[in-house]
Amino acid sequence: MISGKAEERTRTEDTMHIGLGKKTRRAYGFDEIALVPGSKTVDMELCDISCSIGGIKFANPIIASAMDSVVDSHFAAEMGRLGGLGVLNLQGVQTRYDDLGHVYERIAGCDKDSFVEVMQELYKVPVQEELIEKRIKAIKKTGAVAAVSVTPNFAEKYGPIAVEAGCDILFVQSTVTGIEHKSALGTPNLNLHKFTKNIGIPVVVGNCVIYKTALELLETGVAGILVGVGPGAACTSRSVLGIGVPMATAIADCAQAREDFMAKHKGALRPAIIADGGMGVGGDICKAIACGADATMIGSPLARAKEAPGRGYHWGMATPSPVLPRGTRIRVGTTVSLEQIMNGPAAVDDGTQNLTGALKTSMATLGAETLAEMQECEVIIAPSILTEGKVYQNAQQLGMGRK
Amino acid sequence: MISGKAEERTRTEDTMHIGLGKKTRRAYGFDEIALVPGSKTVDMELCDISCSIGGIKFANPIIASAMDSVVDSHFAAEMGRLGGLGVLNLQGVQTRYDDLGHVYERIAGCDKDSFVEVMQELYKVPVQEELIEKRIKAIKKTGAVAAVSVTPNFAEKYGPIAVEAGCDILFVQSTVTGIEHKSALGTPNLNLHKFTKNIGIPVVVGNCVIYKTALELLETGVAGILVGVGPGAACTSRSVLGIGVPMATAIADCAQAREDFMAKHKGALRPAIIADGGMGVGGDICKAIACGADATMIGSPLARAKEAPGRGYHWGMATPSPVLPRGTRIRVGTTVSLEQIMNGPAAVDDGTQNLTGALKTSMATLGAETLAEMQECEVIIAPSILTEGKVYQNAQQLGMGRK
Amino acid sequence: MISGKAEERTRTEDTMHIGLGKKTRRAYGFDEIALVPGSKTVDMELCDISCSIGGIKFANPIIASAMDSVVDSHFAAEMGRLGGLGVLNLQGVQTRYDDLGHVYERIAGCDKDSFVEVMQELYKVPVQEELIEKRIKAIKKTGAVAAVSVTPNFAEKYGPIAVEAGCDILFVQSTVTGIEHKSALGTPNLNLHKFTKNIGIPVVVGNCVIYKTALELLETGVAGILVGVGPGAACTSRSVLGIGVPMATAIADCAQAREDFMAKHKGALRPAIIADGGMGVGGDICKAIACGADATMIGSPLARAKEAPGRGYHWGMATPSPVLPRGTRIRVGTTVSLEQIMNGPAAVDDGTQNLTGALKTSMATLGAETLAEMQECEVIIAPSILTEGKVYQNAQQLGMGRK
Amino acid sequence: MISGKAEERTRTEDTMHIGLGKKTRRAYGFDEIALVPGSKTVDMELCDISCSIGGIKFANPIIASAMDSVVDSHFAAEMGRLGGLGVLNLQGVQTRYDDLGHVYERIAGCDKDSFVEVMQELYKVPVQEELIEKRIKAIKKTGAVAAVSVTPNFAEKYGPIAVEAGCDILFVQSTVTGIEHKSALGTPNLNLHKFTKNIGIPVVVGNCVIYKTALELLETGVAGILVGVGPGAACTSRSVLGIGVPMATAIADCAQAREDFMAKHKGALRPAIIADGGMGVGGDICKAIACGADATMIGSPLARAKEAPGRGYHWGMATPSPVLPRGTRIRVGTTVSLEQIMNGPAAVDDGTQNLTGALKTSMATLGAETLAEMQECEVIIAPSILTEGKVYQNAQQLGMGRK
Repeated sequence: MISGKAEERTRTEDTMHIGLGKKTRRAYGFDEIALVPGSKTVDMELCDISCSIGGIKFANPIIASAMDSVVDSHFAAEMGRLGGLGVLNLQGVQTRYDDLGHVYERIAGCDKDSFVEVMQELYKVPVQEELIEKRIKAIKKTGAVAAVSVTPNFAEKYGPIAVEAGCDILFVQSTVTGIEHKSALGTPNLNLHKFTKNIGIPVVVGNCVIYKTALELLETGVAGILVGVGPGAACTSRSVLGIGVPMATAIADCAQAREDFMAKHKGALRPAIIADGGMGVGGDICKAIACGADATMIGSPLARAKEAPGRGYHWGMATPSPVLPRGTRIRVGTTVSLEQIMNGPAAVDDGTQNLTGALKTSMATLGAETLAEMQECEVIIAPSILTEGKVYQNAQQLGMGRK
Repeated sequence: MISGKAEERTRTEDTMHIGLGKKTRRAYGFDEIALVPGSKTVDMELCDISCSIGGIKFANPIIASAMDSVVDSHFAAEMGRLGGLGVLNLQGVQTRYDDLGHVYERIAGCDKDSFVEVMQELYKVPVQEELIEKRIKAIKKTGAVAAVSVTPNFAEKYGPIAVEAGCDILFVQSTVTGIEHKSALGTPNLNLHKFTKNIGIPVVVGNCVIYKTALELLETGVAGILVGVGPGAACTSRSVLGIGVPMATAIADCAQAREDFMAKHKGALRPAIIADGGMGVGGDICKAIACGADATMIGSPLARAKEAPGRGYHWGMATPSPVLPRGTRIRVGTTVSLEQIMNGPAAVDDGTQNLTGALKTSMATLGAETLAEMQECEVIIAPSILTEGKVYQNAQQLGMGRK
Repeated sequence: MISGKAEERTRTEDTMHIGLGKKTRRAYGFDEIALVPGSKTVDMELCDISCSIGGIKFANPIIASAMDSVVDSHFAAEMGRLGGLGVLNLQGVQTRYDDLGHVYERIAGCDKDSFVEVMQELYKVPVQEELIEKRIKAIKKTGAVAAVSVTPNFAEKYGPIAVEAGCDILFVQSTVTGIEHKSALGTPNLNLHKFTKNIGIPVVVGNCVIYKTALELLETGVAGILVGVGPGAACTSRSVLGIGVPMATAIADCAQAREDFMAKHKGALRPAIIADGGMGVGGDICKAIACGADATMIGSPLARAKEAPGRGYHWGMATPSPVLPRGTRIRVGTTVSLEQIMNGPAAVDDGTQNLTGALKTSMATLGAETLAEMQECEVIIAPSILTEGKVYQNAQQLGMGRK
Repeated sequence: MISGKAEERTRTEDTMHIGLGKKTRRAYGFDEIALVPGSKTVDMELCDISCSIGGIKFANPIIASAMDSVVDSHFAAEMGRLGGLGVLNLQGVQTRYDDLGHVYERIAGCDKDSFVEVMQELYKVPVQEELIEKRIKAIKKTGAVAAVSVTPNFAEKYGPIAVEAGCDILFVQSTVTGIEHKSALGTPNLNLHKFTKNIGIPVVVGNCVIYKTALELLETGVAGILVGVGPGAACTSRSVLGIGVPMATAIADCAQAREDFMAKHKGALRPAIIADGGMGVGGDICKAIACGADATMIGSPLARAKEAPGRGYHWGMATPSPVLPRGTRIRVGTTVSLEQIMNGPAAVDDGTQNLTGALKTSMATLGAETLAEMQECEVIIAPSILTEGKVYQNAQQLGMGRK
């Protein structure tokens, strides 16, 4: 299924070894790479950052993660107004509680030691199907694109309800979603081919991190795939499970799968590669695009918005697990409006505000007029902790400096 | 003695140089690698984490280190009840003192400066052979598998006493155990071939870190080998002696030795590769298995259990050396019950609790139904300090964050 | 346009991959390299550190950055007296305000949260052309070489005014300057060939970081190019835009472009490679020369001088951007006179004072009598955070030490 | 002059590039390597750590640096009694002042800001030739080997005085000493061939770091060479001058030069490779030997001894430079007696005490009975900051831990 071109590329990778008999290769994260300007620059007014998912066009490629600390109906509507997309989690607190004030209050109010327990308790209340409808309709009435997220094993149950309520894009998402799942109870695995064919709206599926899985998922007819396992600020998968692939490598591999898919299915609607997690500043979004992503799904940078329901806190969706919590709650604080975070003006100089402005300025500096051109820009390996800038800055922040 | 297959693999390793005339190669630790999910996932209920040592089967592959801060008779029994194994140190305080309350009180009570001196004094009291019998019988009467640890030069003295008392597995363990030891006094080296043949119970020997030694030890007929020199949280071997091999590489090399041993001795009982040390969280245990280990021996994560005799402290067994202490005492604190640490539910999100649940969840995510399948999963090089997750988390913990 | 010699060198570089289909290579920063002494040493009295830009000779290769925290007319004059060069920014506060006392007072006086806003406000006041003339004449009357900096889109407007006022060297500088700029308004791009031919004084242009751009810029007839994007202490381009190339690699690449330019244009005036940014101590200046630079442009080390207008603060010139500030203000403190920082004697041992003495001593130790010989010295990869010296020193500074 | 064998080795090194046209290679420091145990172990009683310099035999390979904070006559005598060697600096305070009490008091007593100035003043007082004689005789009368250090340009002046006073070994030492020095005044360079031939006692010369220089120096007939530029704890050469070669690589390169020298001059007295600087703990000494050193010269670990004149402080000998100080003063504290630091017993577990015991234990663990065997042991690349042990330990020390 792998094209000759990709195979050839694979062969040029240097195979390394963990030890005798255990092959491996080096993977790279955002903090290890940097973008390289060339000979051409453009005015940022010329930079087009629009993207398309399942035929629906967005003014910018920023998607708010389906996390309870970030997206409620109001936030999703606001993301739409600002040119992006907000995805509402259909299996979080938004569909378990009608009145959410006390829920967010408890989460923000509990101390560090009782947090996991509080979360476990709050997420025990069952999902109410009428709330699915209510949340989606609240988004739709503002004119925004409505997108929701379900786990694979609830896709066939909640998916049709969402579509009925007017949902425009369905995200089918779990930590890792492959083409094959073996169930203990003998219940059949979600048949993605059939599901995407019948559900009636574009389906985005994930998360995945390798070429082979990406290609297999694309073959099911999805409108896009989510790329990223373990990189998020609130995610502790790597400590708990040992699992996680640095984003730059994961994106490049999956983007190559998309190229090979398109080479095989000429004329097909181009499925979107959506980088999901680990992007904390504007520069990270730029790097994700440069590695091959068409859009980016972010959590913590948006959790700082005044409109975010999390009240200055952000937590992973694997946190409430009753037996093995593997997300954490981090205090991100509340800074400015979502509009300022998304489209500026920035009041700070650290890359956390005016994300679309940062992307346009980066493209202008790199001479890229479209995201497709940005995907072709030169990327170098330059670990920030080893090279000059960050070490000095970190030292400054620690109050040491070089002096 | 090395099979053609292994030699071939050796040749594909990139040889590097420290300088002219000094060849070397790169070795990797747990913090430098991560596991890569593929296209298949399974329900965690389907994941079988049982393992076997010397024909004795265990529900899970977690072994409590033969360290005085971790294992006493009661702890060993509890480990057995929870499906794992606890190894009692026959040359620690457990067999030097009948009444241990004041011993642990002194160790936990002394300050940082007097600690080494107190340890040196406490470990001067001679081992009492009747206590060997007493401790083993206390474990056996609970129905648990009884395992004890002796150093090579005391194996022939204490081994038979342990067997007589009902011991099921004997660990012969020193910092480094090779097939040949040259003694100053002309006393003969422990003949492992003879010893394993005659002692009557399965023998596990260690520690070793390289292919050649692993293969030589396996040829003596042992039931397993312990892999790891210098990685433990309480071990300062690398600072004091300059010695230490990062675990991922050591495990992979020794696992290859086992493969080559099995290829030569078809039908033999498969000896166990036991990763020993340097595993602080569930993710590290998962990585050890993925690198080729059949079981893992851990200290500090279990020293936090309410049942651990160390009272919130953990120390290395080389600490009490009268002339060159090279372990340290670290404060780990006391958190929850051993049952919660081993089998959950976890009350925290950092990978220190529900270790078997973490392993099963990791396997489910990676699509591995048995430990043997887990050993085949893809591993990448992704230094956590260089890639996105940890830098951010560390910064958070230091109170700096990116902002 | 690339000579065979350079192409050959390119081929010997090891190509790496971010992931499938995304080629990359490793780039190095100053903190990752070190200079290697050989068999010959010389007395430092024999070391000639003079350099030449556009036919104008300087006693030392240190240029003060065109940053408002560093260079005003008085500072530029003092740099000239001390054998170096100070470049005045024609689009900063120096040409927006006649009386500058209150301006610097406000910047130094505001707190961290209001800083960006204050800067944005202060830089809104328009540039006054009569102040351009006034500042340049103030430098000229001291006998110092007068150099000023303009952005490319104002080069044709302010350049002739500067020349008229007596300016000796014109720096045309933006974050990234390539040979081609595409403008939104259809206004023609600055034609560098024509501009350098007609302006009547030497033109230095930048910044660039790669071989191809450097070669194209050199072909326009400039007297020198500025090398460096993103490395400065006050620069947050890498976080905000994802852009930045570590200095050692950028300098080496651009220096090779200069070699190939000279090979093609035999007898031409040798254009200068000026390393710009990321040099915080004397050792960094030495490394920049060793990588191929003819001169170095520095900011933060000089912002500490008693003569610096910034009053102990230093900020990037991209800070006042109304929509996307991407420089920061750092507190550098005020230490000693500019003369001591430039030519010693040093009162401290950390490399921040007596920069020319450090360069001469380094050259003496390396056996290099001229900067051209220094450019040939051996450089090794030795990441300071990984090797012995710095880790220990950092630990010391954090109050931990090894013990 | 380079033997075919060495050339061949050079070719197997992977050449890397800083950038186009600038070749480089990777160098390694002690913190990046670790020693690998094999299949054989020995009792530490069998480990012979004696070494020989210029035909003089020493019980252990530890030499106290010629630094004023470490060695005075009494300290040198004590080092001799303990089996090592102390080298007295002939151009430090020991030969400038007869009564030293107030000198060390001022150095220890001044604050951080005035330290450099105080040092510069104290080291202005001229060397008194009668004190050279006095100090050497004080060492000789205890029966210890007397060794002193001079800079190359004073070797012909002070050398004969030292020999006259009974000196046994002369160290000719500067930051970097090559075979050729070009002087500003036209005064002839020290002719090492002639000097070593005529001075009448063994001469050790340094420092150097590369193969070519090492080989050239060995050809002059010296008894040994000092290897190391920039690694010491009190040295800031890398920040100030950009110069420094990580020790593991420097030692391996120079050890190869010695091998090639011996291959050419069969039957010659084997000159010693002395690693100088950057060894803070016992493990570092072990690593230096394993990389090819015959002996080690250390400063900071011995400055902690009760007998050290520095009163708990340690400083580099380049600190008092009147124009460019490039050593620093670090507070090391005073711990135990020199005897305990050298030969134990250790009261701490961090590798700073019982250095000879650590070396013997390391050799025993590695199965090496002599230093020559230790030089053949396997060394791996395992950056401590990236692998498990140190990150955890550092975190612990910072009070963070993994939890």
